[in-house]
Amino acid sequence: MQTQFSTGEIISLRKETRGCEHVIHLNNAGAGLMPDIVTNAVTDYIQLEATIGGYEAAALKAEDIRGFYTAAAALINARPSNIAFTSSATDAYTRALSSIPFVAGDVILTSNDDFISNQIQFLSLQKRFGIKIARVRNAPEGGVDLEDLERQLKALRPKLVSITHIPTNSGLVQPVEEIGDIVRQYDTWYLLDACQSIGQMPLDVTTLQCDFLSVTCRKFLRGPRGTGFLYVSDRALQAGLEPLFIDMRGAEWIEKDEYRQRADATRFEDWEFAYAQVLGTRYALEYCRQVGEGRIWQRVKSLAAHLRRELAEIPGVNVLDRGPELGGLVTFTMEGGDPVKLVDQFRQQKINVVPSYRGFAVIDFDEKQVQWALRASPHYYNTADELDEFISKVKQM
Amino acid sequence: MQTQFSTGEIISLRKETRGCEHVIHLNNAGAGLMPDIVTNAVTDYIQLEATIGGYEAAALKAEDIRGFYTAAAALINARPSNIAFTSSATDAYTRALSSIPFVAGDVILTSNDDFISNQIQFLSLQKRFGIKIARVRNAPEGGVDLEDLERQLKALRPKLVSITHIPTNSGLVQPVEEIGDIVRQYDTWYLLDACQSIGQMPLDVTTLQCDFLSVTCRKFLRGPRGTGFLYVSDRALQAGLEPLFIDMRGAEWIEKDEYRQRADATRFEDWEFAYAQVLGTRYALEYCRQVGEGRIWQRVKSLAAHLRRELAEIPGVNVLDRGPELGGLVTFTMEGGDPVKLVDQFRQQKINVVPSYRGFAVIDFDEKQVQWALRASPHYYNTADELDEFISKVKQM
Repeated sequence: MQTQFSTGEIISLRKETRGCEHVIHLNNAGAGLMPDIVTNAVTDYIQLEATIGGYEAAALKAEDIRGFYTAAAALINARPSNIAFTSSATDAYTRALSSIPFVAGDVILTSNDDFISNQIQFLSLQKRFGIKIARVRNAPEGGVDLEDLERQLKALRPKLVSITHIPTNSGLVQPVEEIGDIVRQYDTWYLLDACQSIGQMPLDVTTLQCDFLSVTCRKFLRGPRGTGFLYVSDRALQAGLEPLFIDMRGAEWIEKDEYRQRADATRFEDWEFAYAQVLGTRYALEYCRQVGEGRIWQRVKSLAAHLRRELAEIPGVNVLDRGPELGGLVTFTMEGGDPVKLVDQFRQQKINVVPSYRGFAVIDFDEKQVQWALRASPHYYNTADELDEFISKVKQM
Repeated sequence: MQTQFSTGEIISLRKETRGCEHVIHLNNAGAGLMPDIVTNAVTDYIQLEATIGGYEAAALKAEDIRGFYTAAAALINARPSNIAFTSSATDAYTRALSSIPFVAGDVILTSNDDFISNQIQFLSLQKRFGIKIARVRNAPEGGVDLEDLERQLKALRPKLVSITHIPTNSGLVQPVEEIGDIVRQYDTWYLLDACQSIGQMPLDVTTLQCDFLSVTCRKFLRGPRGTGFLYVSDRALQAGLEPLFIDMRGAEWIEKDEYRQRADATRFEDWEFAYAQVLGTRYALEYCRQVGEGRIWQRVKSLAAHLRRELAEIPGVNVLDRGPELGGLVTFTMEGGDPVKLVDQFRQQKINVVPSYRGFAVIDFDEKQVQWALRASPHYYNTADELDEFISKVKQM
């Protein structure tokens, strides 16, 4: 496999995605454009269900559907028995979170940049069960301060460490390998939210060293909406962790007052799935692997860096991203602009970007002293020409 | 609207569902055949996402998607503000269950026929929080004994009453209006699982008097797989009940350590949806209303009763359904048969039925002294000819 993409290869990859003809899609951190192989897998399967029945289609395509587990495991260097399908990253995240038997006084240690829903869920657990929330200080350059992480691990002995790999509202990439090395020295559960990093960069659970990895498949993996998965480590499985609202897929009902949890990570799944989505996700995962995560990451970083450089030179534009390493999410403000109107103007010109608001990232945006930002998130299938067109539109506004 | 279906109308309804040409679908309690309008709504929307982007499609079709809430509310005589979209009935059920702030010693009062996943979840709550599980005795003819219900409500003062309207494994229909009248006299939360009843019969939350109603849309509503909804009463909303793992859709993050729950039932939703599924569900709900729930219920009961009568006359066949009222789920055993082989033989003849096992309904099957059953679940679009063909195949086996 080539380590870089040739122009011809980008052209042929773009031909495999009908959306590339229609829009300049810089919203891959929202939902990536599905390759045609994914779109067709979903619609073909829906047609099959309509023709022979929903359960009957699932039985007929059982082996194809099982391929999802193999594909997901291969992507993160795990085994299929460590994978649970979920309907989103949040769904994956909360199933993991629900499996930790918190009691009053237990500590969750997190970062200032963890995802909004995770933060709200910690507050809900605090209200309901009296757990405590601690946040690792940021380093001066942005991202988790590793010394403070170690200090708080030692002092607080948290029951859970939760880190969001790439926040939804900035270009920051947390130093997760270093974090994993430190966290693993303490007796704590470690949940890594890889919602924005999966598909953008290579991920390997043996070096990440997390107990749980929660993932969405609609973003940089370019799968259908309403899809995600949860990696559950053997350590967590062997300790018997199970979701609080375990379902008939996750457990067998044996006697009136007794159930038996499944041995593998399907313990974290529900019975009902939109199997069209599971199958589409399988093809998205395989497509990502074929393209190659390593060089996807190089190209995404390079396109995003180009975008930041060009945006920073435009008067009135302020690029907000900070951190030891920056990824594919580019956030910036435009002086005197209104985020809704700006996004709408871009959309009329067939350019997809989205607004981010303070409410999505209270701590980060307060520190940056902004109420909103625009987010542009290129992927490997975007071209330099597309970015330049976007930049020229920004200049005109 | 006609109260009965004419033969011509059944023919024209069947023409609106491509699957009717291909299979004798007696698995509506698993997943109903989607009408073409639903299938097309899902596949068209997926194509739109592939063409312009996932978030951008949701913005473009926002009004169509909102129609889901209007349609769901109309179907159960609620307001759109009482409706939350979910990815299954289990998803709806556990969001409601998670909102009850159980403490050690709290009682959940349920039936012997509640759905397997609900039973497993009660056991999980028992293990984690020390809650107690009580089950209302069955009446001699089957179904909840109303006197015992009242006795246990008075004696135990349960925090929650949970009833499954129609179990997944038998024809039983619980007397839910009478149950509602009794439960409402006590200070308890009342969660009704209408997974198998919605779309099969008219449901009205003002007469059911429940605080929560959990619903799937893939079964008798004939929607896409991976869809459901939760009705949340004004009483539950005003009391501030919220799901334990409340998400950025359900709450606003205001300050570092503070969030504010939404006023309406979207408080129970997650941010991410498969919007193709939401839109398809909207059309399924509207289609059900157009056909008419009242006469659907009459026809389903009549077809199922015909099936039970005919099956009961076949030597070696034992119909298992018991209860004060019987619905569209017909369960029976065939002496000396193997459930997997039988279902497979039917499927080869393009007849869709499924096996049920003791593990799906431990209490009920132990009482009936069976290890398995076959389940045939006709819907209004099935014909008497189809049932007769199925019966003739049963006779041949």
